[in-house]
Amino acid sequence: MSSPARCLNHSLPSVKNMLEVCVIGAGGVGTIAAYVLENSQRAHVTAILRSKYLLVKERGFDIESIDHGKVTNWRPHNVVSSLVAAAAEKKSYDFIVITTKALPDLTSSIIAELKPLITPGKTSLALIQNGLAIEAPFAAAFPNTPIFSSVSMIGSRLTNSTSIFHQKPDVSKIGAHFHHVDDAFKRATQHDAAALFVDVYNAGLADAKPKTNARCVLVEDIVGARWAKLLWNASFNTLCTVLRISVGELLSGPGRNTLLEPAMREIASVATAAGYGNAVSEDIIQDMLHDSPPTSTLRPSMLVDLENERPLELEVILGAPLKVAKEKGVSTPILTQVYQLLSQAQWKLTQQAGK
Amino acid sequence: MSSPARCLNHSLPSVKNMLEVCVIGAGGVGTIAAYVLENSQRAHVTAILRSKYLLVKERGFDIESIDHGKVTNWRPHNVVSSLVAAAAEKKSYDFIVITTKALPDLTSSIIAELKPLITPGKTSLALIQNGLAIEAPFAAAFPNTPIFSSVSMIGSRLTNSTSIFHQKPDVSKIGAHFHHVDDAFKRATQHDAAALFVDVYNAGLADAKPKTNARCVLVEDIVGARWAKLLWNASFNTLCTVLRISVGELLSGPGRNTLLEPAMREIASVATAAGYGNAVSEDIIQDMLHDSPPTSTLRPSMLVDLENERPLELEVILGAPLKVAKEKGVSTPILTQVYQLLSQAQWKLTQQAGK
Repeated sequence: MSSPARCLNHSLPSVKNMLEVCVIGAGGVGTIAAYVLENSQRAHVTAILRSKYLLVKERGFDIESIDHGKVTNWRPHNVVSSLVAAAAEKKSYDFIVITTKALPDLTSSIIAELKPLITPGKTSLALIQNGLAIEAPFAAAFPNTPIFSSVSMIGSRLTNSTSIFHQKPDVSKIGAHFHHVDDAFKRATQHDAAALFVDVYNAGLADAKPKTNARCVLVEDIVGARWAKLLWNASFNTLCTVLRISVGELLSGPGRNTLLEPAMREIASVATAAGYGNAVSEDIIQDMLHDSPPTSTLRPSMLVDLENERPLELEVILGAPLKVAKEKGVSTPILTQVYQLLSQAQWKLTQQAGK
Repeated sequence: MSSPARCLNHSLPSVKNMLEVCVIGAGGVGTIAAYVLENSQRAHVTAILRSKYLLVKERGFDIESIDHGKVTNWRPHNVVSSLVAAAAEKKSYDFIVITTKALPDLTSSIIAELKPLITPGKTSLALIQNGLAIEAPFAAAFPNTPIFSSVSMIGSRLTNSTSIFHQKPDVSKIGAHFHHVDDAFKRATQHDAAALFVDVYNAGLADAKPKTNARCVLVEDIVGARWAKLLWNASFNTLCTVLRISVGELLSGPGRNTLLEPAMREIASVATAAGYGNAVSEDIIQDMLHDSPPTSTLRPSMLVDLENERPLELEVILGAPLKVAKEKGVSTPILTQVYQLLSQAQWKLTQQAGK
């Protein structure tokens, strides 16, 4: 199933037949993804850079990576300043990779401008983003386009607008989203699009593999993998944000037992009711609870967003699973209130942004 | 019932028969209380000052008061540096007024040193503090001593250790705590102790009354009054603290409906189950919900404590009512989780204090 030989729409690229990839979002995750894809020598990347377009065009990115070492003044094959500018180039993309924050408004605005970049029968969408049900708005807008998503465990962040500090190995799971398809689309086509991407991505990790456990794994059940990551994101990430504390402080205080573990078990109950019980088994819960030491000073991504007055990925991390909980009649008293608290915090961020 | 003529143990003071009052706690509330009591010309105040003892002895307090105007270099009749020093003076007090934060550890340490200051048959305890069931530890330690408590609406705070900014008129309700009494103690004695204090306190407000609505009201049901104040303190005060936002921000955001009002209604349900339904009627709830404008920049006391890394009055404001909820079988999902979040925050404050 996962062999590139089965791809119907893609052929293995030769030097003159490189894959064309457009990467939207140039944060810690997106820039490393762009680097890895070019590093595969099987893809040309067009990076869409908004505010940092001129800076990157002038001096590129500086990357300090646990996987790839120190790379200075690195530029993607091609940089453009907007989706509209990318469309004007009239390239035909094999993959459009979306690595922005998964925020409803941002997703809507990307979708509104994405159509000219999609070549029917050729282009696939890759979503390297947090949360649940992130594929749904793309599948609704582009029902005939293969979509796959990645659950990424990479620890990579911007230290300034063009400098990346990539601290934890690039480990990800990728799997196809099997949305409603018409006759022209087979489940195999969707899967094969994901498989080709995984193949290319792993080629781009070749230099890392002797040193780290960097890897990109093709999975059949990406939704299960997304629920498993939510065990962490819907509990640690949200509670550290409400309380403005580190992972270690949450693990060491009374909230470990009164809030964290019950919140994680609520997510497990919802996932189980939705048919993903295997992905959130007791063993996995125990791993999640004990993976970080009580001395961890990690401040999760949502807390970092709050502290920097950036919008929170609240809808994909809590809103979407709570919608499933409601559909399935699963009680989630802790997560519901955490959602309400963070909605209030999000509201305040919006007010501040409006000032 | 409330006439001073009915007091068994107190006589109206003449110039040579002033009431002796010891005030513990010299924050915004305690200093104004000390001032008002001396201002009555019916009481001598001994103020117990710890860290600020020398400063006050040297230059007194500066008070800017909506009720009493600008008062500089004001000193109580007598200042001492500790409860032990007060005991060494071997005065016989009519009233010991406790105006510290209501914190379990602090209450325990005060109780441990209070006995030498209490003259059986003469001394009463006045608690000007927040929260529920604050009288219980004092009643357990001093079962034969009359105790009454005050629900104070004063807006008064320290701007530095000896400067008071008193912004909102001194309005309070005072009522006796009718704890277990033996034969020597009648309900009337307890009530009359409160009545005398109210009488003296109102005399001390005489200069304020033509200007403001400052007043001290004797009430029969102080427990009901404490529940009514909890409608505000257990909802606005706690939620603004968890969210680190002002009263206006809570009222303007989505949390107004999802968190604030339901939390207030949980307190009302508990109070009703405990027999204080009259004190938390729908009218009173509506008053509480609409009393502050959505533009209010007020940061409630618990939030100010959190921001200054001081311990929170969590047990008397949420712990005690939640204990009643448990006893009465009342469901309090929001308040229970708010308590857990604030317990985690309190734990962190303790950790920081220990560093």
